[in-house]
Amino acid sequence: MNLRIKNIFAKLEDANLDGLIVSLPANISYLTGSTSRDAYLLISKKENIYFTDSRYIEEAKQSLSPTFRLKKINGLVFKHIADTCLNLKLKRVGFEERYLPFAEFKKIKQESHNKINLIPTHNLTEELREIKSPGEVELIKKAARITVSALKFIQHFISPGKKEVEIAAELERYIRYKGARASAFDIIVASGPNSSFPHHLTGERKLKKNEPVLIDIGVDYLGYKSDLTRVFFLGRITSLYRSIYDIVLEAQKRAISEIKPAVSIGKVDAAARQYISLKGYGSSFVHNLGHGIGLEVHEEPHICSKEKSELEPGMVFTVEPAIYLPGKFGIRIEDMVLVTQKGMELL
Amino acid sequence: MNLRIKNIFAKLEDANLDGLIVSLPANISYLTGSTSRDAYLLISKKENIYFTDSRYIEEAKQSLSPTFRLKKINGLVFKHIADTCLNLKLKRVGFEERYLPFAEFKKIKQESHNKINLIPTHNLTEELREIKSPGEVELIKKAARITVSALKFIQHFISPGKKEVEIAAELERYIRYKGARASAFDIIVASGPNSSFPHHLTGERKLKKNEPVLIDIGVDYLGYKSDLTRVFFLGRITSLYRSIYDIVLEAQKRAISEIKPAVSIGKVDAAARQYISLKGYGSSFVHNLGHGIGLEVHEEPHICSKEKSELEPGMVFTVEPAIYLPGKFGIRIEDMVLVTQKGMELL
Repeated sequence: MNLRIKNIFAKLEDANLDGLIVSLPANISYLTGSTSRDAYLLISKKENIYFTDSRYIEEAKQSLSPTFRLKKINGLVFKHIADTCLNLKLKRVGFEERYLPFAEFKKIKQESHNKINLIPTHNLTEELREIKSPGEVELIKKAARITVSALKFIQHFISPGKKEVEIAAELERYIRYKGARASAFDIIVASGPNSSFPHHLTGERKLKKNEPVLIDIGVDYLGYKSDLTRVFFLGRITSLYRSIYDIVLEAQKRAISEIKPAVSIGKVDAAARQYISLKGYGSSFVHNLGHGIGLEVHEEPHICSKEKSELEPGMVFTVEPAIYLPGKFGIRIEDMVLVTQKGMELL
Repeated sequence: MNLRIKNIFAKLEDANLDGLIVSLPANISYLTGSTSRDAYLLISKKENIYFTDSRYIEEAKQSLSPTFRLKKINGLVFKHIADTCLNLKLKRVGFEERYLPFAEFKKIKQESHNKINLIPTHNLTEELREIKSPGEVELIKKAARITVSALKFIQHFISPGKKEVEIAAELERYIRYKGARASAFDIIVASGPNSSFPHHLTGERKLKKNEPVLIDIGVDYLGYKSDLTRVFFLGRITSLYRSIYDIVLEAQKRAISEIKPAVSIGKVDAAARQYISLKGYGSSFVHNLGHGIGLEVHEEPHICSKEKSELEPGMVFTVEPAIYLPGKFGIRIEDMVLVTQKGMELL
């Protein structure tokens, strides 16, 4: 049995569950070790079963480890899941309450004729995923390296007159030649005032002289994601740009300097937020400092001020302080860090 | 009041609902007429409210019509939604059971102290979206035109030795220069035996001589999607390839010839499926004939054999018969059609 399955069994035991219905693709990919789409996974001490439909069955046959029994579903997935739970005589079966839609919960309940006690669970697999193995870190590092190299490449391409979407086009092309499977999300290219939107939709606007252009890019390398943001300036840098940029950079430095095991997550966010507030821009930093990253672009832990849990070695997350000045411009600087045994490593 | 809101009000009346919580981004985009991400919409006769967080609030201020009151949420979205329902004295409030996760349903219920009757609804907005307006058809046509032009462009690039992911790289670049905002899904480039997987994950495999390469590509043009599949052959075409290709093409023709208003959807699927079965490959056509397309790549109506509802003018969907021969190759030919007043139009 692989370590991940062993760990999830321990979680089931703690929660007094006989089984767990896993529906989040990233969780299924993590537990099975192979890419999952349109599938459900049933974990139990008796048997682990992977349900998928005819579109994915041939790939699953090739990639799925023998730890998992493969079950083809033909439009009746919830009946199959319910019947399997009943056959295995599972009484208390967990499901992922944050992801399972109400209708699917209802159908599994109906199909089991209320003979299974369906228990909402919260972050069971996600908590395991928070701590990356050395192998996972290597994949994330590779994704980060491709991204860094793409940002270097694009520096020479950016110039006034180019459209935002053309910058994205060149990046989308470049990362695939460098080994990425795909971009991890729609690449954000936000020029001039568009950079003041935290998640601008890349569009047809042309870059202009003496303006910033914010690029937020991530790639997928064998399932693992990266996420980096840089702001470039075209032409003359005004003193306002410069001062805002310096504040964000210093905020990031301060946050990063706090990162080591056993530090509360809230403290890391606070280090950046307090500095930005001190400089008078507290209300312009409108989101969390960062987010865990791995099989998903956004995953546990959330690096936010209210989070009291502590950093642990193996966590990988983004540190992305920002200042947005609506109608003017925005600056966000985003890097990825790994918590190590003694401190941290910039990825 | 815009027509879409008027139509959804009629749906609420039919279902005896005072309000509707909309959480599917495509449904929110449809009803508000502006791109939605990480938002919730509450529709009611008294007031329509758009809830989003600080990351998207500035964009929403600019793009949202005055029909909708904008409400900024600060981590307590479900409390805001529940409080708003209570303030508006809504008694029976629908939610989208296929999309609202169990945990969110539970939270809204808790925050409303069980004073709201939360009613599961099914496809209320999706049914409106099935029938495209002339304006929507224009956007879909534009998306389709970009896609057709990308497939023409890539013909000259495809050659033995190129990697699948490099083909995808060139396509991703090309579509953005032609006006697409992004690809509508990860472009599938499946070479040789990989084409026998209906949804192959584009990878590092190099194209070889005397093999097919299947390309499934769609783009996003101002929110509207396209979806087309073509198979190219590199080198000498074997007689097996040729005969399978001809069967799939004829199956598509037969399905398309059935398309006109008031024909049952199942009949269209059957026209293709029966022909493929007749030729002995019924078990190799492992998915539905097609799917509706618009603000989402896959939406209503599903073109499947069991569907008894009838085609109506304004529906846009894919027609994509296929034969997959595991370990050998697969052929899928996918086009998009619009149901017109008298028949159909190939997009």
